[in-house]
Amino acid sequence: MPHYYWVVTGLFTTLQDCFGFTKHNFARLVREDSAMAVVQNKQIIFKHYIEGIPVESDMELKVGNIKLEVPEGSGAFLVKNLYLSCDPYMRGRMRDFNDSYIPPFVPGSVIEGFGVSRVVESDNPNFKPGDLISGLTGWEKYSLITRTAQLRKIQQDDIPLSYHVGLLGMPGFTAYAGFYEVCSPKKGDYVFVSAASGAVGQLVGQLAKLYGCYVVGSAGTSQKVDLLKNKLGFDEAFNYKEEPDLNAALRRYFPQGIDIYFDNVGGPMLDAVLLNMRPHGRIAICGMVSQQSLSQTEGIHNLFMLIAKRIRMQGFLQSDYLHLFPRFLELIISYYKQGKIVYIEDMNEGLESAPASLVGLFSGKNVGKQVICVARE
Amino acid sequence: MPHYYWVVTGLFTTLQDCFGFTKHNFARLVREDSAMAVVQNKQIIFKHYIEGIPVESDMELKVGNIKLEVPEGSGAFLVKNLYLSCDPYMRGRMRDFNDSYIPPFVPGSVIEGFGVSRVVESDNPNFKPGDLISGLTGWEKYSLITRTAQLRKIQQDDIPLSYHVGLLGMPGFTAYAGFYEVCSPKKGDYVFVSAASGAVGQLVGQLAKLYGCYVVGSAGTSQKVDLLKNKLGFDEAFNYKEEPDLNAALRRYFPQGIDIYFDNVGGPMLDAVLLNMRPHGRIAICGMVSQQSLSQTEGIHNLFMLIAKRIRMQGFLQSDYLHLFPRFLELIISYYKQGKIVYIEDMNEGLESAPASLVGLFSGKNVGKQVICVARE
Repeated sequence: MPHYYWVVTGLFTTLQDCFGFTKHNFARLVREDSAMAVVQNKQIIFKHYIEGIPVESDMELKVGNIKLEVPEGSGAFLVKNLYLSCDPYMRGRMRDFNDSYIPPFVPGSVIEGFGVSRVVESDNPNFKPGDLISGLTGWEKYSLITRTAQLRKIQQDDIPLSYHVGLLGMPGFTAYAGFYEVCSPKKGDYVFVSAASGAVGQLVGQLAKLYGCYVVGSAGTSQKVDLLKNKLGFDEAFNYKEEPDLNAALRRYFPQGIDIYFDNVGGPMLDAVLLNMRPHGRIAICGMVSQQSLSQTEGIHNLFMLIAKRIRMQGFLQSDYLHLFPRFLELIISYYKQGKIVYIEDMNEGLESAPASLVGLFSGKNVGKQVICVARE
Repeated sequence: MPHYYWVVTGLFTTLQDCFGFTKHNFARLVREDSAMAVVQNKQIIFKHYIEGIPVESDMELKVGNIKLEVPEGSGAFLVKNLYLSCDPYMRGRMRDFNDSYIPPFVPGSVIEGFGVSRVVESDNPNFKPGDLISGLTGWEKYSLITRTAQLRKIQQDDIPLSYHVGLLGMPGFTAYAGFYEVCSPKKGDYVFVSAASGAVGQLVGQLAKLYGCYVVGSAGTSQKVDLLKNKLGFDEAFNYKEEPDLNAALRRYFPQGIDIYFDNVGGPMLDAVLLNMRPHGRIAICGMVSQQSLSQTEGIHNLFMLIAKRIRMQGFLQSDYLHLFPRFLELIISYYKQGKIVYIEDMNEGLESAPASLVGLFSGKNVGKQVICVARE
């Protein structure tokens, strides 16, 4: 879908411009032709639609070849993938359910996800060999990129490249848009974040602290609880797996109630939070990672509290707020460079580790943002 | 709690003003003294806290006497109750649950609810004998009113008096605040209203039609469906009890999806609506009449749709919007007098009918707003 390309060519006025046969481009074409090597391409293939949580055997490693060549006139370009992102929303693409904001994966095809990549060949004047980009790519060593709508060029500086699928990518922007645009924060608010050490939660908590809120997070291991309190600056944190009564736990941490709940899990935690909200509280519904399977959702029983406490509960997608992305980048990069925020990554090495990394998200195996390093440069 | 009274007396500057011993008032006191008759007072007593839906035996009729006298200096006044309102929220006051926006009833005491009453004796300069008022009163023939905070004087005109507990009272204002302030309507929106012929629903539907929306309502009998389509001007209506698959029914009535759901029932209908919402839809959570019992709430399973469709779901109480009450009255009275809206009441005669009337709400026995006529003047 070389949409962007045609928009660009629409601006040209002469045949020469249109077909681009300038002397310079001729020289480039000749050079590229000689470089059109066939190289090995490892890919992670999506095997079949699933029920419940994913397992490694829902994916398979396939080793093939790829010609480092971009179809002329396609506007496409070839990238070498460096870092790939594992995100809970990907579970939603593994089921045969088309009525969502994003289509399901195609069985037999390579898995698609966010990544940081380097352009190696290009038929698109806006993306040149050597450029670093962040956006949707394939779970493979090399990808042919034909959709450029949400791609972003990375200006490399002293921020780790992989952060562009985390702190400075979709999860970070989700935290930013969710907290500032959906939660309507006020200084002094009591804020609760679930899955608080995850890719989104860790930034929500830090942004809330910087805003002057009191922040408590929940996570699933004592290691994560320790990180929340001692590295990420949460006021309090608890291991939900050690709490037989979530309602009682929340009453203990929020004796005065919760103003803002940033929900990354849904299920029983959401139900318990509903009993502990303050009047006019806000709930941002983000991940519902505990409820990703259509066939196994647990019922929420305490929605009557929405009335008694006049609660606003809002689902959101970061993609609705992309006009704020530049402002987000500016703020977060500034906070990061001033040492006001940190970011915890869980980096697995090699494309081969990708299926286990994705599967691990759903049992909370990752500590921080889950990334796969395919290549370092 | 004669709060309002003391505020008023605080403005007086002389002893005479303060105690009100003008010649005129002396004459009135003498007259009233002779009129301090002891009369029979029938009352509906709340017997005990309940689980589940109320039954008639949770209340009892008690016949006693009342002296038509107001304690001097109390700022209180005595009223004769004319019309009493049966509202689903009253179920919430029948259980032993203090963590709500309104305290529970007191076992052994008279039931409290909205009503239209006529002042018969008064120690409050702002409420004089003969005045008609609307606000919280007792389920009895005569009530001593000590709290005047939310009382409203009625300027009698050609609008039926009983409408002041319905169209022009709390239910009407709930519809107004919920639709305009919570639902964020846009012209052309697809609007669904449950319990659509009820005290709130019937006005929501008519306001939505006047706003230029497409409106479908659900109700529990074919008689109500007929009223919705032929008297209340809904575009479509259906009997939810005749629909084995609510999701399929909603898909049929809203092939393009729902922009606004005004939820008066909660439960399985809310769950089915979630599957049929359009992107950026709004759900106003109003009554949840199907889920009034804490011990029997049904789980909601489809909240993941909040994310996929970026839905805002908001509980509200009309009491948060009282600053808009004058604007509401002006608009609705104008619409009514122009014949642009109608209002359907279900009037039962006599205080004795009150327990059955209240109980009937929870099986949908009422057709339109349930009112009890205690006396006509």
